[in-house]
Amino acid sequence: MNSLRITVWGENVHEHTNAKVNGIYPRGMHTTIAEGLSKYLPAARVTTATLQEPEHGLTAERLRDTDVLTWWGHKAHDQVADEVARRVQARVLEGMGLIVLHSGHYSKVFRLLMGTTCSLTWREADERERVWVCNPGHPIARGIDRFFELPMEEMYGEPFAVPAPEEQVFISWFEGGEVFRSGCCWRRGNGSIFYFRPGHETYPTYHDDNVRRVIANAAEWARPRGAWVDSCPNVTASAEKISPK
Amino acid sequence: MNSLRITVWGENVHEHTNAKVNGIYPRGMHTTIAEGLSKYLPAARVTTATLQEPEHGLTAERLRDTDVLTWWGHKAHDQVADEVARRVQARVLEGMGLIVLHSGHYSKVFRLLMGTTCSLTWREADERERVWVCNPGHPIARGIDRFFELPMEEMYGEPFAVPAPEEQVFISWFEGGEVFRSGCCWRRGNGSIFYFRPGHETYPTYHDDNVRRVIANAAEWARPRGAWVDSCPNVTASAEKISPK
Amino acid sequence: MNSLRITVWGENVHEHTNAKVNGIYPRGMHTTIAEGLSKYLPAARVTTATLQEPEHGLTAERLRDTDVLTWWGHKAHDQVADEVARRVQARVLEGMGLIVLHSGHYSKVFRLLMGTTCSLTWREADERERVWVCNPGHPIARGIDRFFELPMEEMYGEPFAVPAPEEQVFISWFEGGEVFRSGCCWRRGNGSIFYFRPGHETYPTYHDDNVRRVIANAAEWARPRGAWVDSCPNVTASAEKISPK
Amino acid sequence: MNSLRITVWGENVHEHTNAKVNGIYPRGMHTTIAEGLSKYLPAARVTTATLQEPEHGLTAERLRDTDVLTWWGHKAHDQVADEVARRVQARVLEGMGLIVLHSGHYSKVFRLLMGTTCSLTWREADERERVWVCNPGHPIARGIDRFFELPMEEMYGEPFAVPAPEEQVFISWFEGGEVFRSGCCWRRGNGSIFYFRPGHETYPTYHDDNVRRVIANAAEWARPRGAWVDSCPNVTASAEKISPK
Repeated sequence: MNSLRITVWGENVHEHTNAKVNGIYPRGMHTTIAEGLSKYLPAARVTTATLQEPEHGLTAERLRDTDVLTWWGHKAHDQVADEVARRVQARVLEGMGLIVLHSGHYSKVFRLLMGTTCSLTWREADERERVWVCNPGHPIARGIDRFFELPMEEMYGEPFAVPAPEEQVFISWFEGGEVFRSGCCWRRGNGSIFYFRPGHETYPTYHDDNVRRVIANAAEWARPRGAWVDSCPNVTASAEKISPK
Repeated sequence: MNSLRITVWGENVHEHTNAKVNGIYPRGMHTTIAEGLSKYLPAARVTTATLQEPEHGLTAERLRDTDVLTWWGHKAHDQVADEVARRVQARVLEGMGLIVLHSGHYSKVFRLLMGTTCSLTWREADERERVWVCNPGHPIARGIDRFFELPMEEMYGEPFAVPAPEEQVFISWFEGGEVFRSGCCWRRGNGSIFYFRPGHETYPTYHDDNVRRVIANAAEWARPRGAWVDSCPNVTASAEKISPK
Repeated sequence: MNSLRITVWGENVHEHTNAKVNGIYPRGMHTTIAEGLSKYLPAARVTTATLQEPEHGLTAERLRDTDVLTWWGHKAHDQVADEVARRVQARVLEGMGLIVLHSGHYSKVFRLLMGTTCSLTWREADERERVWVCNPGHPIARGIDRFFELPMEEMYGEPFAVPAPEEQVFISWFEGGEVFRSGCCWRRGNGSIFYFRPGHETYPTYHDDNVRRVIANAAEWARPRGAWVDSCPNVTASAEKISPK
Repeated sequence: MNSLRITVWGENVHEHTNAKVNGIYPRGMHTTIAEGLSKYLPAARVTTATLQEPEHGLTAERLRDTDVLTWWGHKAHDQVADEVARRVQARVLEGMGLIVLHSGHYSKVFRLLMGTTCSLTWREADERERVWVCNPGHPIARGIDRFFELPMEEMYGEPFAVPAPEEQVFISWFEGGEVFRSGCCWRRGNGSIFYFRPGHETYPTYHDDNVRRVIANAAEWARPRGAWVDSCPNVTASAEKISPK
């Protein structure tokens, strides 16, 4: 198979406005996420793009050359141009894989693809998160034990307002009591979409080996399986017309 | 149960610009669709709304008082205000039923809810359509034989670019050879969504008794089953904090 | 609507062999479950059937007169005759609602309908269970707060080896740490199926008001919506044969 | 990736009792199906197994060494031992791919995995079948045009009593008028299942290049993606017990 081309998209705002975030991710969260992908998928070609670049780094050409896109955004969802969000949506429907991380649940891209509010409950309280595996045979859970833990994370709780996941890979529990469907799969058009919950900016989550492994597994799982550019064509009937005899 | 409140939304453009359409639907397609609903659901309160009214007749208050909305549009999808389309989407997610008719597959509302292109192939060639029942026990197929026919319709063919239907009620065949998933169910949020294919404006399809019966069955099926206004709340943890002993 | 006819099926073994169970459910778990249904659905006709009756109380006639069946079994799954299990399966496919309770996950009936192993992890350790609502607008969650608790229950944990639920209503957390998809919906044929986790025989779970309310909501939700007896018929073509001109 | 190990299972009865079938498939339908697979997947290791072999050729060891199994049966479904059918089911849930062909819709294996009756309507009348592609980007449709035709086939029509397909790849139309969901995907456990309609024994369908290509594509699509042997284990809680402070 061809080398997987992964683009890691980062909002890249907190890193420049919050000293704590900058301390954990001095070169940007996207850089750390990309490093994790390269570690677990050494043959992949991993690059990054950010909100601040022209067209947020996601030109039509760039997307055409991307097999799987990861998306992290939080406080600047509204600054993503509608046109770029729709372009990403279109490319996913065409076949590009998409991995939506943490607060990306409220990104334009994810909401456009899900069609629902994508809301959830949340709390910032330095809580332990335990991520349970719902299917140990799922390729996205490869190499993960029955569960793994993150010592501190933001809490996300049910209800999570998304269409019923086609496959449930992980469910999380938090110290404050809540549970959350933290690893969910859907297909839309020919694109494979994975939502993965962990990754609040004030914690070193994307340095965690289990988190990195999951994202890498998901990128491999989301590899495009066939492209189709649809266009609502007017078609002619077959030469013959089929009619009652 | 309470009387079902149905709002029939019509684009109401072809009726004023095309003599043939005006001849078939002199008081508007929406009026004919509403009459069909009243015939098969005599206890329902059926009203209409059109593109030309302020806010297209779909104010927040009007939607709040609507249990099921039917949507027919074709040439003026772009004239539907984004704000109104998003308001309808939000109300569906909250629990309102939605029946999307024919060319409504390309409406803003349907595309927002599906998240896909909703494209298909098509042809206008006065073709016979035969609509087959995929589940004779489904409430939307109640009273319909193995199939029913429409003597002339526009052809819609696969591929139909929607998320996998959660229930397949009808599949159509056309004289030119094509097939199409012509009756499809989804749930999004708490709203029940039914797409029903027939209804090109230049044919008397909404005068047809089988078509009317299906739309009425679908309205009954899409009755709201529970409302939930979601808002992504920040929540406090339970008084207790749950932690390892 | 007609009065809902509910049959509560009970294995009725532990109650006669275990003093603790007998103390909690002196007239059988099925009797207590039936009382809860009658409390929340006073208009329903609720009856019981048990393993020990001829044909386990589930004759063809009895099933024909049942709209919704609830199923609790644990240690005697193998004593359920294959013929009766297949008869229940067939009646569900025809339209009867089915509510599978707790250890019923391993019943012949549930496994036949799911097609998977229906396995899970488990532990008996007097653990607190917290049942979270995943969709506050779902009819099965009506009247339930964000969560409810049971002070002591058997633990069931992921992985739960079932087909992806079509709707997720509840997810549970247990004091020992595990999480579990504890309220799951599927449709098979025309039957609505709800799996609800709580109910280990050594705890008074079926006396709990939240549990009773959920089971009653589920019975209402599972009301048959249309019957279809399928038989793989040989059919003749329409009078006309449709062929190319 | 490793070489795909495909086992082609054939009932192998008609070939010995019906001169017409023997004329078309002198070495058995399974042999012809296997040849088609080898043509389109030259790197695969394709072998056959038949009803008449001990354990129908499907010992636990043989299944362990099979990545994808294809299944054709018709008149002798009842002669397949329950134990072997359950063994195949278990192996699919563990991860083996399964391609069910034509009259295999009524096999024990398929019915066990679907949980429904799997019934349909049918007619033997030498009808033309036109197989339409519902998703041109789906890997199973790779290399297939908008549709392909088989000059004569048995008719299968809706209703097809299966759980809602997770992906619809093909829909067929027949000269007598009927339509049928002829290419359907499901996942059960970790196994990928594809049902493909064509293949009545009295027609040379498995010599057809399009049919062969589809079956080969499906075998590639159904390649195991991860294995998991589930066993409903009793688990101990984490060392710590998580409790309210």
